[in-house]
Amino acid sequence: MTESLLDRRARLLGPNMSTFYADPVHIVRGQGVWLWDAQGRKYLDCYNNVPHVGHCHPHVVEAIARQAGTLNTHTRYLHDGILDYAERLTATFQGGLDTVIMVCTGSEANDIALRMGQAATGKTGVIATDNTYHGNTALVSQLSAKKPPIGGYAPNVRLVPSPDSLRPLGGSMGAQAQVFAGHVERAVAELVEAGHGFASLILCPFFANEGFPDLAPGFLDPTVAVVRKAGGLVIADEVQPGFGRLGSHMWGHQRIGMAPDIVTIGKPMANGHPVAAVVARADINQAFREAFGYFNTFGGNPVSCAAAMAVLDVLEEEKLVSNAAETGEYALERLKALKHPKIGQVRGAGLFFGVEFVRDGSEPDPEFTASVVEAMKAHGILLNRLGRHYNCLKIRPPMPFSRENADRLVDTLASVLNGSDVA
Amino acid sequence: MTESLLDRRARLLGPNMSTFYADPVHIVRGQGVWLWDAQGRKYLDCYNNVPHVGHCHPHVVEAIARQAGTLNTHTRYLHDGILDYAERLTATFQGGLDTVIMVCTGSEANDIALRMGQAATGKTGVIATDNTYHGNTALVSQLSAKKPPIGGYAPNVRLVPSPDSLRPLGGSMGAQAQVFAGHVERAVAELVEAGHGFASLILCPFFANEGFPDLAPGFLDPTVAVVRKAGGLVIADEVQPGFGRLGSHMWGHQRIGMAPDIVTIGKPMANGHPVAAVVARADINQAFREAFGYFNTFGGNPVSCAAAMAVLDVLEEEKLVSNAAETGEYALERLKALKHPKIGQVRGAGLFFGVEFVRDGSEPDPEFTASVVEAMKAHGILLNRLGRHYNCLKIRPPMPFSRENADRLVDTLASVLNGSDVA
Repeated sequence: MTESLLDRRARLLGPNMSTFYADPVHIVRGQGVWLWDAQGRKYLDCYNNVPHVGHCHPHVVEAIARQAGTLNTHTRYLHDGILDYAERLTATFQGGLDTVIMVCTGSEANDIALRMGQAATGKTGVIATDNTYHGNTALVSQLSAKKPPIGGYAPNVRLVPSPDSLRPLGGSMGAQAQVFAGHVERAVAELVEAGHGFASLILCPFFANEGFPDLAPGFLDPTVAVVRKAGGLVIADEVQPGFGRLGSHMWGHQRIGMAPDIVTIGKPMANGHPVAAVVARADINQAFREAFGYFNTFGGNPVSCAAAMAVLDVLEEEKLVSNAAETGEYALERLKALKHPKIGQVRGAGLFFGVEFVRDGSEPDPEFTASVVEAMKAHGILLNRLGRHYNCLKIRPPMPFSRENADRLVDTLASVLNGSDVA
Repeated sequence: MTESLLDRRARLLGPNMSTFYADPVHIVRGQGVWLWDAQGRKYLDCYNNVPHVGHCHPHVVEAIARQAGTLNTHTRYLHDGILDYAERLTATFQGGLDTVIMVCTGSEANDIALRMGQAATGKTGVIATDNTYHGNTALVSQLSAKKPPIGGYAPNVRLVPSPDSLRPLGGSMGAQAQVFAGHVERAVAELVEAGHGFASLILCPFFANEGFPDLAPGFLDPTVAVVRKAGGLVIADEVQPGFGRLGSHMWGHQRIGMAPDIVTIGKPMANGHPVAAVVARADINQAFREAFGYFNTFGGNPVSCAAAMAVLDVLEEEKLVSNAAETGEYALERLKALKHPKIGQVRGAGLFFGVEFVRDGSEPDPEFTASVVEAMKAHGILLNRLGRHYNCLKIRPPMPFSRENADRLVDTLASVLNGSDVA
């Protein structure tokens, strides 16, 4: 009798490694917005943002293969690749965000960003929201620890309540911006009082893991004013909303009208090649290197830069940012037309949107949401859920997602909601 | 007037980013043990361990290209690639080191390893040597901080004096093993006394950054006994000595006859593709995931696993571990035959060896060493220096390094030492 794939996985990777779905999928091939499993079943990928310009895009694959066959070294030698990429990347930012530190993962980027805040201010206090995720290093995992780490929670971290669309802070959408800023202001005061001082506020400008609440441009203005007044920095974690996903802008902070001091980018940056980066003002970059020193062996290697550059090529050539805007708007309109008693709200921007499910008109319904996720998978659609209560569908497909793909997604969801798989 | 490459680099990557050499090299192409600069100059690469099986090895490049064109997703779906690799990798270890967590950088691997030690023991104290480097995350950079980080040194870290060949701890090579263990024992007591308790000792079993002192098998036995008695774990950082570099064994800890609880691997693992891993007993792996949770988006993706697997293929097919043993021994013999008043000692193992330069018979001579490094570069040989005093040549070439390459290296060094470039 042969060992099952799951048993083999538990034996070799450890007994408690997470998977998606009650019956995990065994994916063997990808192309564009499609994935195939080992049985030849085809899935529409409505979840994966890492293959940003589509699974296995030939332009990116070719760039990787060509550069891997030419040279792959490190940044202690000079190379044009990283400079050409940094030039093109920084041109997409405003506000003096014109230097880049290339690393391999979003976790590494945020680990640097937090230390940049410390180096630039001389303080150590960090503020994040209470339902976020910024990565998995010892430092940044403190921002999303679900239970006390060995040695206890970091004393210099404060988590503030996340904004929400259905249950807004302060009880109304109108009050929410000021209430959120007030929480940040109190956290700053606590950090100062405790002797840590205040270094930075880190947030995803789309509040993706918080359930991507509908927030108007300017929502963060009162919060940023609090941060500035306290002498701290704002870090925008663009790992999820960045690279045009939201359709209207290249970056999430541009959409909400906020000027960060530091930006971190990752997942979609090189279509799955392990590449991430920190973009910051030169003075902050310099202060970080002076305080901490830093070298990353793989960071900014010629292959990583070629892969990242190829992603920008495809984004432009295939007009994927405007596609995200148009297809996202179309999908959102169709979703909003669905009628079902469990639908609490439909929201999102560009190709990052979803449905929040509730019961009895307002209570979060994570069980129902989970059953929808499983039923969609059974019907050949891969997506998942997020939010504080895990009751929001997380729909975040590769950027070449088309109207036809959106129709298939929405038609399948309509059928699932009207069917007997969910209850 | 065009902007120089160095000016452009300072503008885009920050003003204080490190480079190698007084006049940094602009490398554009690599193959096997050779690198070429933008002017077409050819260099023998005696430094880079990342391109382990040779720059741009076609088998690795092809594996990357093939898998990148087929599928690149994450470990929340099932895939054979990571399991096949983990099976083959763990077969090279003894002592129940049979589970793997795949990540992207050695820094991420050590960041996990330290937390594994904490999860398995419930304590937080960490011991390392005082001239080491284990990576660049906020946590692991505490082990090699040259100046106090913002917020101060971590209170739960103790650094013990490194072993040395020319200036052994306790004054003699015979006493050194016990004296080193004594330092570790005192550090354990301090950590317990301070309330942190003792979780782990992390070290490179070749003491690479410490200057790779000549240490007999069994050197670490008294130290490991101290760690075991105190209920702590031993972490072997194999990022530099691993994957057969030392010639006699696949792993540095096997060569020195030490059984670690956790092993971290990185740089050479996938020939430059950003891949690293933590190998640990299943109970430690499980304790870590229970205490901290962990998911790494890029870690263990199918392309990373294909690249890492291809490196193992080439290591075997081209018999590169035995080549490291034979060529390394040959090079070391030839180096030992060199006569020069500044040569304090010639030492190393496999394809990781060097020359320690001194003045007045015993004083470290970093300036002379630096001039040798620059002169070797001028003569087409890339190498560098390390050790507490930066007075040891660091010679660590790709594994296909041949006798002919070794001859060129030693002949050039002889000529440089006898010439007028160094003094």
